[in-house]
Amino acid sequence: MDEQAKPRTLKLPQRDVPWPAAISDAARESLIAMEMNKAWVKFEYPDPKDKEAWRAFAQQVDAGLLVAQPMYALAERPGIRSETVTMGGARVHISTPENIRPAAEGRVYFEMHGGGLVFVSGEGCRRGSLFEAERLGVRVVSVDYRMPPDHPYPAALDDCMAVYRELLKTCKPGQIVAGGQSGGGNLAAAFALRARDEGLPLPAALVLLTPEVDLTESGDTFHTLHGIDPVLLDKLTVQIQAYAPGQDLSHPYLSPLFGDFSRGFPPTFLQSGTRDMFLSNTVRMHRRLRKAGIEAELNVWEAMPHGGFFAGPEDIEIGVEMCRFMDAHWHD
Amino acid sequence: MDEQAKPRTLKLPQRDVPWPAAISDAARESLIAMEMNKAWVKFEYPDPKDKEAWRAFAQQVDAGLLVAQPMYALAERPGIRSETVTMGGARVHISTPENIRPAAEGRVYFEMHGGGLVFVSGEGCRRGSLFEAERLGVRVVSVDYRMPPDHPYPAALDDCMAVYRELLKTCKPGQIVAGGQSGGGNLAAAFALRARDEGLPLPAALVLLTPEVDLTESGDTFHTLHGIDPVLLDKLTVQIQAYAPGQDLSHPYLSPLFGDFSRGFPPTFLQSGTRDMFLSNTVRMHRRLRKAGIEAELNVWEAMPHGGFFAGPEDIEIGVEMCRFMDAHWHD
Repeated sequence: MDEQAKPRTLKLPQRDVPWPAAISDAARESLIAMEMNKAWVKFEYPDPKDKEAWRAFAQQVDAGLLVAQPMYALAERPGIRSETVTMGGARVHISTPENIRPAAEGRVYFEMHGGGLVFVSGEGCRRGSLFEAERLGVRVVSVDYRMPPDHPYPAALDDCMAVYRELLKTCKPGQIVAGGQSGGGNLAAAFALRARDEGLPLPAALVLLTPEVDLTESGDTFHTLHGIDPVLLDKLTVQIQAYAPGQDLSHPYLSPLFGDFSRGFPPTFLQSGTRDMFLSNTVRMHRRLRKAGIEAELNVWEAMPHGGFFAGPEDIEIGVEMCRFMDAHWHD
Repeated sequence: MDEQAKPRTLKLPQRDVPWPAAISDAARESLIAMEMNKAWVKFEYPDPKDKEAWRAFAQQVDAGLLVAQPMYALAERPGIRSETVTMGGARVHISTPENIRPAAEGRVYFEMHGGGLVFVSGEGCRRGSLFEAERLGVRVVSVDYRMPPDHPYPAALDDCMAVYRELLKTCKPGQIVAGGQSGGGNLAAAFALRARDEGLPLPAALVLLTPEVDLTESGDTFHTLHGIDPVLLDKLTVQIQAYAPGQDLSHPYLSPLFGDFSRGFPPTFLQSGTRDMFLSNTVRMHRRLRKAGIEAELNVWEAMPHGGFFAGPEDIEIGVEMCRFMDAHWHD
């Protein structure tokens, strides 16, 4: 090919994209509302080195998310008991349903919360674990891992490891499914790689919901779905710099996508949507696992942005699929 | 929500999309070459009612595809025997490898060829079956189904049914995997629904490669990936009108996506890519099957357009995954 003639990018003209026709009305309304409100999430990031400013900023973002996202909206959920304890030196929120699903009796969903590795600690994490306990009908142990600006990488991952070691004192590994959404999916996958590397028994399965598994942000949908995903408006470069300043971002504990899965990894459930900027993250992780012979199941929802529609039956379906996958993999 | 204030579409500004970073060099080069050549595929469709003009047009398109697409490029493939016969009144091309993979001994890939339901009959179909026989290491029976302008729907589907009935005289249903790409995926899925409705035993499995399962073209990626997929440049409305003039396009034999899968359907392998305009078709079909409790496996490749990259290891991976799925499902 004539190198001179080669276009350096794909040039797309201005265009009008209709709202998706083939999703529920509730999901479509939510998508439109998110689009109308998205100026709200156009963060002015402070310099992560300015700890005071970053702390104030993170508090402000968290406060916004607690209002905007249904999974964080409720401080209590009927029939779910909430306790906050310390395990292995790390803070965890445990959410226990009064009515555990029979298949999930004695099982644990070991959760790493979302929030781009820098948001949603504390109350957001606690509320997120209530949400998961309700939709999954299982006891949820959610790590309220340490964060920037005071505790950059590897503090968060260290906390996940410490809690898992504690969990193994009362649970068999086959009774545990680990998982997380977005930044939580990063930690869940990194945890599984590191647990394997450290000779720990692996959990029964892993759940990666639109996971941030590539902190080098090399996926194609960062570009093709730019402006189309109303939740993730851009790459998360500043957050990543705050999370892991000066680190080699291609290390598998930071970008689990680049891990060596041939040496063992749990069966993995992956979720994304066709309007999700992390679609590339998700499908690439799925392919990497499949190529290494790891059982991995990909589920992609029509027109769904990062994290779901935050309304409508499609989001509920995600929970149904998670339950089915977990129930097929728990063992004693 | 204030109905007045609601934006009627998502307005995207002009933008530059970089070439995908996380694919093989060969795939990227092919993607760029396709983009540079895509003026070539901007068809000037004749009126399907003008049979003479449509015939000449289809011949011209086929001639182009036979040059441009590697799967159709070779008239012979080493170690593959080709024969053209009549089965149940329909023409079929049978491609038989000298070295059949052990797991595929005595098995058949029952193929419905691609080409938007109006192209790639005859020599293209024959060459496509050679390609599949080579990459799958199995005997391929490919239906050279009748087409517009002389034989609109249901002629093509009738041919598939007739060939399947003949196949069942020498094969057990568990020895057959049915499948197809694009328009062929439409026929493969429609065939499975109709076979079930007519009380025929179902094949061991189904393979739907970036399938055209929704002739109403209601998926979101018809819009979000417009201009991004260099293979499918637009909706296929004219082809669909030629295929099924005056028909109700939402009928499950025309748009299998809308079928009732709760009454049985084969385990199904689905393939697409994040730059594939049929990504919505594919993921929606996957979700419909999963919700009906049908075993269905979704595989989506990074930055892949409709039909593959036509170069590079990613396309080879599709064949590897197909073999794995087939081998897990054949039975006697």
